[in-house]
Amino acid sequence: MKKYFFFFLLYSGVAFSQNNDAQNLKEIYKLSLTNSKCYSWLDYLSNKIGARLSGSANAEKAIQYAKGELETLGLDKVYLQEVMVPKWVRGEKEIAYIKDDKTKTNVPICALGGSVATAKNGILAPVIEVHSLDELATLGAEKIKGKIVFFNRPMNPENVDTFKSYGGCVDQRGKGAYEASKFGAVGVIVRSMNLRLDDFPHTGAMGYKDLPKEQWIPAAAISTNGAELLSKSLVKNPNLQFYFKQSCQKFDDVLSYNVIGEIKGSEHPENIMIVGGHLDSWDLADGSHDDGAGIVQSMEVLHLFKTMAYKPKNTIRAVLFINEENGGRGGDKYNELAQKNNENHIFAMESDSGGFSPRGFTIEGNEANFKKVLGFKELFDPYQVQDFTKGHTGSDIEPLKSKNILKAGLKPDSQRYFDYHHAANDKFDAVDKRELELGAATMASLMYLVDQTGIEP
Amino acid sequence: MKKYFFFFLLYSGVAFSQNNDAQNLKEIYKLSLTNSKCYSWLDYLSNKIGARLSGSANAEKAIQYAKGELETLGLDKVYLQEVMVPKWVRGEKEIAYIKDDKTKTNVPICALGGSVATAKNGILAPVIEVHSLDELATLGAEKIKGKIVFFNRPMNPENVDTFKSYGGCVDQRGKGAYEASKFGAVGVIVRSMNLRLDDFPHTGAMGYKDLPKEQWIPAAAISTNGAELLSKSLVKNPNLQFYFKQSCQKFDDVLSYNVIGEIKGSEHPENIMIVGGHLDSWDLADGSHDDGAGIVQSMEVLHLFKTMAYKPKNTIRAVLFINEENGGRGGDKYNELAQKNNENHIFAMESDSGGFSPRGFTIEGNEANFKKVLGFKELFDPYQVQDFTKGHTGSDIEPLKSKNILKAGLKPDSQRYFDYHHAANDKFDAVDKRELELGAATMASLMYLVDQTGIEP
Repeated sequence: MKKYFFFFLLYSGVAFSQNNDAQNLKEIYKLSLTNSKCYSWLDYLSNKIGARLSGSANAEKAIQYAKGELETLGLDKVYLQEVMVPKWVRGEKEIAYIKDDKTKTNVPICALGGSVATAKNGILAPVIEVHSLDELATLGAEKIKGKIVFFNRPMNPENVDTFKSYGGCVDQRGKGAYEASKFGAVGVIVRSMNLRLDDFPHTGAMGYKDLPKEQWIPAAAISTNGAELLSKSLVKNPNLQFYFKQSCQKFDDVLSYNVIGEIKGSEHPENIMIVGGHLDSWDLADGSHDDGAGIVQSMEVLHLFKTMAYKPKNTIRAVLFINEENGGRGGDKYNELAQKNNENHIFAMESDSGGFSPRGFTIEGNEANFKKVLGFKELFDPYQVQDFTKGHTGSDIEPLKSKNILKAGLKPDSQRYFDYHHAANDKFDAVDKRELELGAATMASLMYLVDQTGIEP
Repeated sequence: MKKYFFFFLLYSGVAFSQNNDAQNLKEIYKLSLTNSKCYSWLDYLSNKIGARLSGSANAEKAIQYAKGELETLGLDKVYLQEVMVPKWVRGEKEIAYIKDDKTKTNVPICALGGSVATAKNGILAPVIEVHSLDELATLGAEKIKGKIVFFNRPMNPENVDTFKSYGGCVDQRGKGAYEASKFGAVGVIVRSMNLRLDDFPHTGAMGYKDLPKEQWIPAAAISTNGAELLSKSLVKNPNLQFYFKQSCQKFDDVLSYNVIGEIKGSEHPENIMIVGGHLDSWDLADGSHDDGAGIVQSMEVLHLFKTMAYKPKNTIRAVLFINEENGGRGGDKYNELAQKNNENHIFAMESDSGGFSPRGFTIEGNEANFKKVLGFKELFDPYQVQDFTKGHTGSDIEPLKSKNILKAGLKPDSQRYFDYHHAANDKFDAVDKRELELGAATMASLMYLVDQTGIEP
């Protein structure tokens, strides 16, 4: 009986077969589904550390934890890369209500990341609802001055790829305050980037770009239910007022780190392949999907290779980037040092789309390398990983430049991602163990195949 | 502003394009993601009616509700098919504990469907752990007599298709008591068919076949955490005892119904195509995935066609089968009447694998028809529906016989299905709206394509 359980608890140590890719992928998936560490790592990151916004004490804890765990894997090198990161702090929980004649109805909001605070006692102002930056410009200062601009364009439910719907909406969050301020708005409320109706406001980055500081107006996200209510209330009473109060603050940049674990290549140590995600998260929840999942999957790729005693031909690094959410400094710094050190990166892969069932990859690179990856497609059929398309692969690996570099982004099922993204419900229990493990196996499999075959010139 | 929302609330009524399958599929998916009723139907079935085991008052309510909703769709015919179904009632909540010397540790169990009750005061007996029916036979009466047999073979985590792992375990549940009784066991405890470790016991059907009634022994499922604990406790003390008490009861068969909604074919009304799921569920929860999802998706196929004013060439029926879980009487009855009425069924499709993101179809039929479906594959690529394989399509459509009939089973992502299957957490909030809607669109799309092209001889 005990023996029976050992079957699931101990790995028998089957070595990689030299000439059988299909068999090797099978081993990778089997190992990931039975002996991986990624789920327990995520449990720790989410439940023992929690939210880890850049510059926070938790981000520092996460860096030390990930470094410590990588050090247990018997890698050739584990190290930190210094990165100066922005520090923005939410402060007290935000308050907001719709003031309709004498009725006050509370609605859930949260400050957008990077926003300034409201006046100490909050803002109370009439509201103008718009659905695009163009509509805002058409209305102009006459209709906008002194008001709170309410951006309420929902994510388009028609797209099967929900990231496409996100891309079609996120300008409201990123640029809404910047544009509205030009017309004299006193504040901005943005409908959360969420396809379902619920009570979670979703934060995310915004910026004031070149606006003089005295024109910076506070910006917050409102939950989708809140947005629906506000919109309906405005139909009944266009003169209602909206109140919100937030006390967020920006501090000086602080020192933080990218965390890197490395297995040196046995044949071409000068060729570098990286797999990564981002270690920072927004501050409202654990960031289990965004991007705890990508972090532990990247670490798992190295763990799987070590467990199977796979000796990669090229140098493989797991890179746990810092500050993807509100600055992208980790990705920039990694590229800066790669250029400085004349490193030759042949492959970069990122997982930053949630820990859901893997469906395929997005690919960036030259045509020969895209075809090369398409050539692997059949090997992934047994794992239902079947969607290989050109497209954006990841924000952290975006800055990385290298001749003929091939980039890949793990593409998990996207239907539920925006239920959790940047919101207080992005927690550990929203991640399924097997889906997470399958994602890690999928990444390790592509890494293995590219390592075996190299890239095309 | 109001107009803006109409975009999502009202369907513009684009008609089917006669010669553009890709465009028609696009319309089906778009409509399902924006104007379907399936999610609100499921909300009602799950939250207003709830668990609906065959023969229960709730099953009857669900039948009347589904019939009423189908009647609002403007179909050509909505009717009930009489079916006599078994009636089994769980009775009081089960109690179980491990008695180790003087310590009693409660563990979560539930009676298996069809089991007899324990003696009124329960059973207390030593336990023997086994992992297969073969192992049971090897041990024989000497080791088993007077004991509770604990079947503890876990689902194999290595399979990507979790249904394969279920198939590899479920004999313990279905036949465990039957086989153990032959060797003089006094009761059976079966590890829940669940890939993760949690505290939900999962029920499911079992039977005593030809055993004389006095040899029927009570059988229950134990949660996976409970099974782990019991197994570890047995290692420490092989002489521990297990206690359980259940008061389930079987009554006489009662009258129930399949629910059928029909659109008459415009060119070949004599050719019948069906899409279905099962309206009954186990009694521990809402059965939102199993098989509320399949029911509302089947209804949605008709709703989508009516909304788009699609006039099928062949007669299309949504068949909401009763009694899949503990008898299969609905499927049997449907076939019996189809034979009696000389109906010519060309196509049958079932959704009974949960309301998760659709990944593809399993197909049954002759080689020419399998190839025919493979020929549609490319049309499904934009929707990430890419897995078309031969395999079991559905229990309710299994009895249906007709010359050259083509059968298809919707294949959703299977990773989370057995977290909920037959357990108290199979509830509405475990179903994602978009995943459910994508499944309905996928079914409607295949139905449309087969309707357009007919089947091969």
